[in-house]
Amino acid sequence: MAAGEWDQIRAIREAVAADSRVRIGIGDDTAVLNPVAGELLVTVDMLLEGVHFDFSNCTPTEVGGKAMRVNLSDIAAMAGQPLAAVVAVGIPRAAPRDLPMELFRGLKQAADEFDVALIGGDTNQSTSGLVVSVTLLGTTTRHGPLLRSGARPGDMICVTGKLGYSLSSRRHLLFTPRVREAQMLHARYELNAMMDISDGLASDLFHITDESGCGAVIEAEQLPIHEAAQDARSPLDHALNDGEDFELLFTLGAKEAARLLSDQPLAERGVFVTRIGEITTDQRVMLRGANSFQELPRGGFQHQWS
Amino acid sequence: MAAGEWDQIRAIREAVAADSRVRIGIGDDTAVLNPVAGELLVTVDMLLEGVHFDFSNCTPTEVGGKAMRVNLSDIAAMAGQPLAAVVAVGIPRAAPRDLPMELFRGLKQAADEFDVALIGGDTNQSTSGLVVSVTLLGTTTRHGPLLRSGARPGDMICVTGKLGYSLSSRRHLLFTPRVREAQMLHARYELNAMMDISDGLASDLFHITDESGCGAVIEAEQLPIHEAAQDARSPLDHALNDGEDFELLFTLGAKEAARLLSDQPLAERGVFVTRIGEITTDQRVMLRGANSFQELPRGGFQHQWS
Repeated sequence: MAAGEWDQIRAIREAVAADSRVRIGIGDDTAVLNPVAGELLVTVDMLLEGVHFDFSNCTPTEVGGKAMRVNLSDIAAMAGQPLAAVVAVGIPRAAPRDLPMELFRGLKQAADEFDVALIGGDTNQSTSGLVVSVTLLGTTTRHGPLLRSGARPGDMICVTGKLGYSLSSRRHLLFTPRVREAQMLHARYELNAMMDISDGLASDLFHITDESGCGAVIEAEQLPIHEAAQDARSPLDHALNDGEDFELLFTLGAKEAARLLSDQPLAERGVFVTRIGEITTDQRVMLRGANSFQELPRGGFQHQWS
Repeated sequence: MAAGEWDQIRAIREAVAADSRVRIGIGDDTAVLNPVAGELLVTVDMLLEGVHFDFSNCTPTEVGGKAMRVNLSDIAAMAGQPLAAVVAVGIPRAAPRDLPMELFRGLKQAADEFDVALIGGDTNQSTSGLVVSVTLLGTTTRHGPLLRSGARPGDMICVTGKLGYSLSSRRHLLFTPRVREAQMLHARYELNAMMDISDGLASDLFHITDESGCGAVIEAEQLPIHEAAQDARSPLDHALNDGEDFELLFTLGAKEAARLLSDQPLAERGVFVTRIGEITTDQRVMLRGANSFQELPRGGFQHQWS
C-alpha cells in the first residue's frame, strides 16, 4: 500500500454510511454481508481509458457514475434489486491527485441513487490509463430473475425508451439504469425474457434468440429511434448498432403485451414501451422494412478498437 | 462484443462444470446463485501487467492462478469458505491469440482446487498491458468470520509458515492460500483476530493494531524467515517488508496459543505455526532484537512503482 493510498481509503471509508445489510464494510480482508434472503445476482463490468472512455469529453466523476450504472443496468436486466458493490481501480501514475476521489464521488452518487452499499475495493497504480472494475451484487425479487432464455414463439418483443445515438450524445455517460422500471414491469406483467441493450439491438437480440432456441422478426419501422443530428449513417443503422442504450429488451405473450402497451405503466416516469417485433420458431433474426424482408446479420456495436 | 470474444466466451462457458450452488452461470446479464446460508464474504483484487507481474518471468496461466489465489488468501484471512468468482479482464491488442485461454486455465485450476464456481466475466481490450480483476465470494463457517479488530492485550501473535523472499523466489506466483489451514485453526482454537500477510508483516500488523485499538511487540529473533540467497538486505528486512507471503497472521489468548504451539495441528500439511510476539495496550508496534528495542515504522512492501 502506497503512502497516499492509506489516507484515501480512510477518507472513502468515512464517506460510506453504515448500512443494515453490511456487517463489515471497507477495512478488513473481505467485506461481510449479513445473510441475504433469496437468490443472489452477481455481475462485473470493467471500463478502460482509451477503450470505453476518454478524458477529452468526460470527467472522472462521470466515469465513476458510468462504471456503477452499467452494472446497475445488468441487475435491472434480471429485474433484480441492487445490494452491494466492490470496486477495483488502476490509477495512472501521472493522474491528478484528486482523480481517485472524483472517481469515487461518481461511483458513490450512482450507488446512493440505487441503494447500493459500497463495501470494498482495491486501489492500484496503473502504468497506462485509468481502469475501473465494478462488481455488483443484487437479489432477486419475489418474482424471481428474468432470464434471456424464456422467450417463446409468438411472444411480442418490446423495448423501453429510445434507441441509437447514445455515444454521439452524452447519454452513454448519463443514462438511467432501468432498475425500477424492470421491477415494476416484472411485478405487473408476465414477462418471459429480458436483457439490457448494451452492444446494440442487432447484437443483443441474438442472446435472447440463442438462449431461447428461437428466432425473431423485427419491424424496422416500429423502432423507437432517438432524435439526433443527421450524419452519413441512417437512423435505423444507429438504432440497431450503436449500443450503450441501456434500455430493456423483453418478450411477453401477445395478450400481456396488448395490456402493457395500452397501460403504458412507465409513462409517469417518462418512459414509453414500444413493440418492435415478434419471436418466431425460425432460428434466424429477420428485419422487415417498408419494402424489404431480410436476415439481420449478427452484428451490433463493435467497440472503438475493432 | 468483438468477433473472437463470442467464441472464447462459448469455450469458457463449456469448460465450466455444472455446480449445485449456481442456478445461472456464464451467459445471462448476471449470474444467479442459489440461496446462500449464513453471512457472505466479498473481496476483489486487481493485477496489472508492469505493476504486479511481468511476462519476462511468468506465464499467463501463472498470472491467472495468482489472480485467483490472492483473493482466496483474503477469504482464508476471514477463515471463510470460498464460493464463486467473477473475472474482468483487459486483453492487450497485441496479445498472442491464446493468451485469454491460458489466463483462464490458470484461473480455473486455482478455482477448482478450492471449490470456487466461475460464474461470470467481462472481457475487454486493453490499449496497454494485461489487466485481470477477480471478485471472489465466500461464506462464513459456523464459527463466524475472523476479523482484524478482535485482538486483545496479552494475546500472542502467531504466523503460519515462513516470511520473506517471496518476490525474489517464484513463491508469490505459486503460493498456497491458507484456506483449509485457517478453517482448521478457527474450528479448533479460540482465535481473536486474523489477516493474511500481503503487503509485509511490518505493514499488515498495523491493520490489526489499528482496528483493535492496541499495539504489539514483535520478537525479531522469533520470526520464521525463509532460507534464501544472500543479498544486500538483511533477512529480517526481507521478513518484515517483502510482502506477498500470503501467510496467516493471527492472535489468540496465551493459553490457547500454548495449546496450539504444542499441538502444531498443521504439521501434517507441512505448515508450522510460530509465535512472533504479543499484543500490548500501547498504541505502538515495537520490535525487540537481541540488543535492541525500537519502534517499528509503519512501512512494509512498497509496490515496484513507488
